[in-house]
Amino acid sequence: MNVFKTIFPVLLLCLSSSMVFAQDKPNIVLVFMDNFGWGEPGFNGGGIVRGAATPRLDQVASEGLRLTNFNVEVQCTPSRSAIMTGRYAIRSGNGTVPLGEGVYGLVQWEVTMAEMLSEEGYATGMFGKWHLGRTAGRFPTDQGFDEWYGVPNSTDESVYSSLQGFDASGLSETFVMDGKKGSVPKKVRPYRLDYRPLIDRDLTDRAISFMKRQTKAEKPFFVYLPYTATHFPTMPHPDFKEKSGKGPWGDLLMQIDSYIGELLDTIDALGIAENTIFIFTADNGPEALSPGETSLTVETAIHGSAGPWRSTLFTGYEGALRVPFAIRWLGKIEAGRVSDEIVHAMDLFPTFAKIAGGKVPADRVIDGIDTSDFLLGQDEKSGREGFIVYMGNDIFGVKWRDWKLHFKEQTGWNGVLREYTMPRAYNLINDPQERDNVLFPHTWVPKAALPQLNEHVASLKKYPPIPTGTSDPYKPPY
Amino acid sequence: MNVFKTIFPVLLLCLSSSMVFAQDKPNIVLVFMDNFGWGEPGFNGGGIVRGAATPRLDQVASEGLRLTNFNVEVQCTPSRSAIMTGRYAIRSGNGTVPLGEGVYGLVQWEVTMAEMLSEEGYATGMFGKWHLGRTAGRFPTDQGFDEWYGVPNSTDESVYSSLQGFDASGLSETFVMDGKKGSVPKKVRPYRLDYRPLIDRDLTDRAISFMKRQTKAEKPFFVYLPYTATHFPTMPHPDFKEKSGKGPWGDLLMQIDSYIGELLDTIDALGIAENTIFIFTADNGPEALSPGETSLTVETAIHGSAGPWRSTLFTGYEGALRVPFAIRWLGKIEAGRVSDEIVHAMDLFPTFAKIAGGKVPADRVIDGIDTSDFLLGQDEKSGREGFIVYMGNDIFGVKWRDWKLHFKEQTGWNGVLREYTMPRAYNLINDPQERDNVLFPHTWVPKAALPQLNEHVASLKKYPPIPTGTSDPYKPPY
Repeated sequence: MNVFKTIFPVLLLCLSSSMVFAQDKPNIVLVFMDNFGWGEPGFNGGGIVRGAATPRLDQVASEGLRLTNFNVEVQCTPSRSAIMTGRYAIRSGNGTVPLGEGVYGLVQWEVTMAEMLSEEGYATGMFGKWHLGRTAGRFPTDQGFDEWYGVPNSTDESVYSSLQGFDASGLSETFVMDGKKGSVPKKVRPYRLDYRPLIDRDLTDRAISFMKRQTKAEKPFFVYLPYTATHFPTMPHPDFKEKSGKGPWGDLLMQIDSYIGELLDTIDALGIAENTIFIFTADNGPEALSPGETSLTVETAIHGSAGPWRSTLFTGYEGALRVPFAIRWLGKIEAGRVSDEIVHAMDLFPTFAKIAGGKVPADRVIDGIDTSDFLLGQDEKSGREGFIVYMGNDIFGVKWRDWKLHFKEQTGWNGVLREYTMPRAYNLINDPQERDNVLFPHTWVPKAALPQLNEHVASLKKYPPIPTGTSDPYKPPY
Repeated sequence: MNVFKTIFPVLLLCLSSSMVFAQDKPNIVLVFMDNFGWGEPGFNGGGIVRGAATPRLDQVASEGLRLTNFNVEVQCTPSRSAIMTGRYAIRSGNGTVPLGEGVYGLVQWEVTMAEMLSEEGYATGMFGKWHLGRTAGRFPTDQGFDEWYGVPNSTDESVYSSLQGFDASGLSETFVMDGKKGSVPKKVRPYRLDYRPLIDRDLTDRAISFMKRQTKAEKPFFVYLPYTATHFPTMPHPDFKEKSGKGPWGDLLMQIDSYIGELLDTIDALGIAENTIFIFTADNGPEALSPGETSLTVETAIHGSAGPWRSTLFTGYEGALRVPFAIRWLGKIEAGRVSDEIVHAMDLFPTFAKIAGGKVPADRVIDGIDTSDFLLGQDEKSGREGFIVYMGNDIFGVKWRDWKLHFKEQTGWNGVLREYTMPRAYNLINDPQERDNVLFPHTWVPKAALPQLNEHVASLKKYPPIPTGTSDPYKPPY
């Protein structure tokens, strides 16, 4: 049984762009939080127990669709690679976050959702963290974004210059950058602790300004807003510092909620709420700083919350994979709907393509599937029954319906990865903590779950992944 | 600083009963689930991810007040003792569930919330599991309930007759019982697996019948409804079996939600919604059956979900202490309010007393506090800043505001209890999993949290607890 839908080499099913008029193309705002666990927003049982209520986030869910089983890859770079391309990060050579220096990220051959939407006449703006390349030719403005303000790498680098023993000699520094398509982005300022608490304020302002400009120009727009605030170091903006009375994480929740409120209010004020898809989600599960690591952070060590799910980012457990997801499209998506259907971040590319009348590339494997009928309520099923669970470049397991097969186990995000002599089976409804292997008597689960893995592995063999660190230009060997 | 409020020996602050007219006394319906974790209902982020949506439970929350920090004692008998008496279970000799045979439960000297409400003219009905005594003089009808239908002990006993190796000789059997105040309850039938799936249906029917009768008689009523379904063995009623498509736990969630819906619909149909306080809560955190223990259960081994909180019932962790809590009182309690203020099950007695114009006993220590102003929205604070965390008769720790001090640790509900050489401090906002001891630099926390413990220990010395298994009549030595 072929339970795993790979779009390649299926013919393009999407509407041709000529069938969709510009005014029919909805705007898309994609908020992509950093290391923000399933259990954080009020709409998933968080909010007040995490330090602050989140009424505006909850509003996105109550006015739209909340997915309780929206999945991502489990590290920053892989997750961003997958959402941008609709492909497993392994295919793009982005299976892990880059730790050393040198070239990484998306080769120019890759087609991003920004490029696809740009082709369809969208104005495309990105405000925030890229983490898919830090060198010329690898910036967001090289991958379909008309404009970008933000950081190429990750936020931990903002701490470097404040660390005891840090030696900058020979190391590149992360800068806040400002870029336009067609030229190399300019370095605005070093990304250091003085600017760390302030950056998300600027990202919000720029996103709002962008939406206003495009609305005035009557151009459909795509805003990709990968906020930085919830990645360590935890440093709320001065407007919110010590405002929650529950510590810096509560302050941050207030800040996030307030910024989301500003975005929603802008969309309402511009009169475009019924023509704007608003998505709130995240790149992977929460951080967990182990005891003794608090000295690495500037303020209080924060444990994020994955809600009921096991573990944190950088693992193959549900706490890493499931992230908050709410989508609002007034008048199009039923308000207050909740679904536990499996959807993956990779599915957004083909889904946006369908909605915007765009083209999914036909010359490569696209792992994402079009879930537009599901999101719009024309189908109760998402069409996705599972996916491969990667932890870095390792296949950790397979998710299939309410089941997980684990081939490996981890002692934590920074711990040991060990291989099982026999796969273990977990039922996520009965056992959200993935603690009780019930392979016996459920030996039918591997029979049902493994075909997708076999198909995936065969596909990797037929269409070899791009080696990590490949320089441009890249040409596929197939 | 005296942060821990003990009402004794304070003078009675409650309204005298003459000030409250019968028609002003609101009905009270107290649904008390068995081993039902914080993470189960949709209103706490559960529902669909646990196997079934819970729209009627969610309705109680959305039409009323949801408490995210409502606490109980961590085992069945202690929790039931505390909620009934407004006193720590240790005071009543009910610190642990009884494992052997013999006398246990509430001595007749104890005053229950049913007795208090009965004094105020309430009709009092209990339908469900008592677990506070199985011998003559120890039944609910000996403690203030006009009528009772249910089981004196716990639901694990329903499995006994089906177990390999079970020897009934010399052991008493649990019967389903039917009783009226003033006579010894009658044994209706043995509590075995044939009746196990059916009992909660009967409890619901009897509760509904009781509410109808009392409404017709224009009598204020108190319904105590300690359902049994969510205690192992997990056996949904035939009406719901295999209806969720997500296994027996999902079926049970559907069942519970449906029964709650019937209760709400009855209250609405009787036209008493604005004069009826409806509470949904539970006795302690979820079960966790360890691997290898599945043979003890009849159907699939179920792990309950405590949501983001650590561990299960029978521990001192938040997963044991925090349970779902929603209270609806239309027109009196603000709809949709959510609070993380600490409230304890012991507080319900004085709170009900205040609301019903009843008397809190003045000749003993009452640990609960009146939270009526808080529930009714006249005070943002509950008035409770903490409580002592018992695990059985052991003091496991102290909860104070967002902090816990642990004196001990546990390897799980059936594991090992070990004492720390120095207390450990946990911040529940930053660290809901209680994993990172941050005593340093937070050595101020013991200073703030320990006075309540010192006061409690002094109080236990001054007013010695009733020894476990004490026979009636009991007279306090003070």
